[in-house]
Amino acid sequence: MTDIENKTPELANDKAENQMENAPESHIGLEDTTVADVVTALESGNAEAVRELIEPLHYSDAADLVEQLNVEQRRQLIEYAHDVLDPEFLVEVDETVRDEIIEHIGIDSVAETVAELDTDDAVNLIGELEEEDKQQVLDTISESDRAIIEKSLSYPEYSAGRLMQREVMTVPQFWTVGETIDFMRQMAEQDEWAVPDLYYEIVVVDPKHCPVGRIPLSVLLSSRRPINVSDIMSSDIKLITATMDQEEVAHLFRQRDLVSASVVDDEGRLVGMITIDDVVDVIDDEAEEDIMRMGGVREDDFYSATIDTTRARFSWLFINLGTAIAASLVIGMFQASIEQIVALAVLMPIVASMGGNAGTQTLTVVVRALATKEITPANAMRQVGKESMVGVINGILFAVLMGLVAWVWFDTPMLGVVIAMAMVVNMVVAGLAGASIPMVLEKVGVDPAIASSVFLTTVTDVIGFLVFLGLGTLLLI
Amino acid sequence: MTDIENKTPELANDKAENQMENAPESHIGLEDTTVADVVTALESGNAEAVRELIEPLHYSDAADLVEQLNVEQRRQLIEYAHDVLDPEFLVEVDETVRDEIIEHIGIDSVAETVAELDTDDAVNLIGELEEEDKQQVLDTISESDRAIIEKSLSYPEYSAGRLMQREVMTVPQFWTVGETIDFMRQMAEQDEWAVPDLYYEIVVVDPKHCPVGRIPLSVLLSSRRPINVSDIMSSDIKLITATMDQEEVAHLFRQRDLVSASVVDDEGRLVGMITIDDVVDVIDDEAEEDIMRMGGVREDDFYSATIDTTRARFSWLFINLGTAIAASLVIGMFQASIEQIVALAVLMPIVASMGGNAGTQTLTVVVRALATKEITPANAMRQVGKESMVGVINGILFAVLMGLVAWVWFDTPMLGVVIAMAMVVNMVVAGLAGASIPMVLEKVGVDPAIASSVFLTTVTDVIGFLVFLGLGTLLLI
Repeated sequence: MTDIENKTPELANDKAENQMENAPESHIGLEDTTVADVVTALESGNAEAVRELIEPLHYSDAADLVEQLNVEQRRQLIEYAHDVLDPEFLVEVDETVRDEIIEHIGIDSVAETVAELDTDDAVNLIGELEEEDKQQVLDTISESDRAIIEKSLSYPEYSAGRLMQREVMTVPQFWTVGETIDFMRQMAEQDEWAVPDLYYEIVVVDPKHCPVGRIPLSVLLSSRRPINVSDIMSSDIKLITATMDQEEVAHLFRQRDLVSASVVDDEGRLVGMITIDDVVDVIDDEAEEDIMRMGGVREDDFYSATIDTTRARFSWLFINLGTAIAASLVIGMFQASIEQIVALAVLMPIVASMGGNAGTQTLTVVVRALATKEITPANAMRQVGKESMVGVINGILFAVLMGLVAWVWFDTPMLGVVIAMAMVVNMVVAGLAGASIPMVLEKVGVDPAIASSVFLTTVTDVIGFLVFLGLGTLLLI
Repeated sequence: MTDIENKTPELANDKAENQMENAPESHIGLEDTTVADVVTALESGNAEAVRELIEPLHYSDAADLVEQLNVEQRRQLIEYAHDVLDPEFLVEVDETVRDEIIEHIGIDSVAETVAELDTDDAVNLIGELEEEDKQQVLDTISESDRAIIEKSLSYPEYSAGRLMQREVMTVPQFWTVGETIDFMRQMAEQDEWAVPDLYYEIVVVDPKHCPVGRIPLSVLLSSRRPINVSDIMSSDIKLITATMDQEEVAHLFRQRDLVSASVVDDEGRLVGMITIDDVVDVIDDEAEEDIMRMGGVREDDFYSATIDTTRARFSWLFINLGTAIAASLVIGMFQASIEQIVALAVLMPIVASMGGNAGTQTLTVVVRALATKEITPANAMRQVGKESMVGVINGILFAVLMGLVAWVWFDTPMLGVVIAMAMVVNMVVAGLAGASIPMVLEKVGVDPAIASSVFLTTVTDVIGFLVFLGLGTLLLI
């Protein structure tokens, strides 16, 4: 817990000097003006200007820029400038936009791009192509590269094997720090691509190529040359099997604050390494998926064409129409009561809506807790109990509130009693259903994020209308 | 894109050997049996057994375990075993649970724990204490540590300054690789805490202590000793100012696949470094926050006491009661129509519910796109247009569907026409409102995730009831 600033004595005395004139530029990423300039250049058909604007951009900024254009502008930009784009651009850009670009530039250009990428990026890109395009791209790349990529593609989608890079810096147990550093220098000079571009730890392996320890580079650099690697390596290594689900991988990285981890095959042999930047993408994707699914959207359709978005959302709305009709059937059972006391029709949506909102609160917390593995056999029942209790308390509070409003509004005390009773029942049901529906779905292997809310709304609507209109019929007519 | 396996010749020939017997254990993290054993030991009051079970656990597993216990068990465990828990346990454990533990062990024990932590963890922990506890902890720690922590605490909450660690490995521009490595070894031997525990790059600074370049450790290790650091450093550095919002920081790390980045003050001088593990926590928290807020929950209340959860959720439900009553007032305007045609009351929730669901789909995509900065002035209007178009198409499809259902159900063709027209109107309004409400809220500085859905439901309910009942009154009576 000591400040390093006073450890570089050459610099310490500058600390009190005058302020620098060039304050750091705080802007990050793509500027809106660049986008506007590109659009202007595209509109005036000035290919040279477009190329000049695109060329200096970082590939992720270029991806952001292309995403912001409309379909026509995108096509034009790719035509003018696709050869000045960094190959990694294609990895970075949104999937929907990427498909559009690939269709435009042709599969041959994709193959050229793939040859310039790292294995994990190449696997990523090829893995998302359609089957016949996939084969065509694989056919055009060199045999050794193809073997590596095909091996990676043989792992299931969303597994550690797909996520990992094959390049790992390994050393045998009996080496010294000096030998290791010399080897690393030699590797770097011999063949630029023999070692991973960037890596954060060295894996110590036994003669069978099974990992026995890891050495963070900062530890290696702080140790004297004659020291044995086995003396400074940490043998507390978490091994990831190549078939492990990426969600598990992300959980492990988060829990242990890892920056990289070794991936092994079924026999425990090192086959690759996963680095945190790939895991960050997984964490992002998983959270994104949960948010989208809970909102009734299959996947992020932000860049999809209108017609694709419409089609994708239709099915979800169709299911919801079914539950809405079910709720209406319940109301239909009480037509006679409504005809006599029309106030029932005026107030009934309040009971259903409050149940739906309270249930959604519970649902959100429980779905998220399931995703982050916070719900276990040890606390599941306690959680259901707690949510029901929350429903009881808030149910009573809102029952009193709404009971008074209904009494005053329609000048009928008994109507207040009816809505109050219905509110309590529906909010307890909402808590109970909101907590248990996702748990049951998880148990039977259905993603709770995608299906919970339909079930919940059906329950809270049906119970809400049934109890309110039923009690109204019993007590008021 | 070359496989490293054949670059360590000592190992390559082992590749084809027999399978190893010890397949890697695929289990990760805390085992359910451990939790059960701890609970049993707690119930039988066996303090020794509890300590023996807890001591070997990694601090994040210990945190998971404590979170899964109930309040009474937690208290007992802390009493029996708080001295065998790793200090980092307190950083890792959920905030609600942490407050409970701190209350139990007392603020003096917290101060002892803080003294053993890294600056960023210590700042994190102290930053979340209440004002008077904060001062008490700061008073008990050493003066030099206190100065560092107070400096960090002086940065706004959720800023880069809070996230960074103060320890950075820096070298002046004119050094060589050899000098740098010797310096690192010397630092490590002189004082274990003078340098960061783990780091991934070295920052090259000018005499004013302003960063001018960065060298990933893997690059440093691959370079010969006489080479100048200025020849291998990358000067494409993204500087983060200490006051930058943590969301911006996370965006930058993701976009550029960074593992660490320098933090500078207003004069451009290096003040610290942010590493990816801290950013992963931010990414997690931001996604969590969005999910919770869209579900109408203030924050993750999974571990809160029932009464706190009830209170926290009450305010959201209260606001929703307001919008539900507003919708009922609209229905109230048409009491006379409902008395004449009770079918209107039966069908009206369908119109409102379909609008609500369609609007929520749009809302989810737009809120998420705002959070990930995908919406820009260049594409905002296009997005609103697209969502309205999706509303028009799906609106027409469901209008036809529901129109036929209503016609058959109540044997009144005109009722089918009325509900069809109302559906189209409400679904277009839903698309328009779902896209524009979050954008307007973002513009005026309100978090779209927290407030959008209330506004949306109000709009879709009010418009849904108004148009359906209004058209019903006009065309049917």
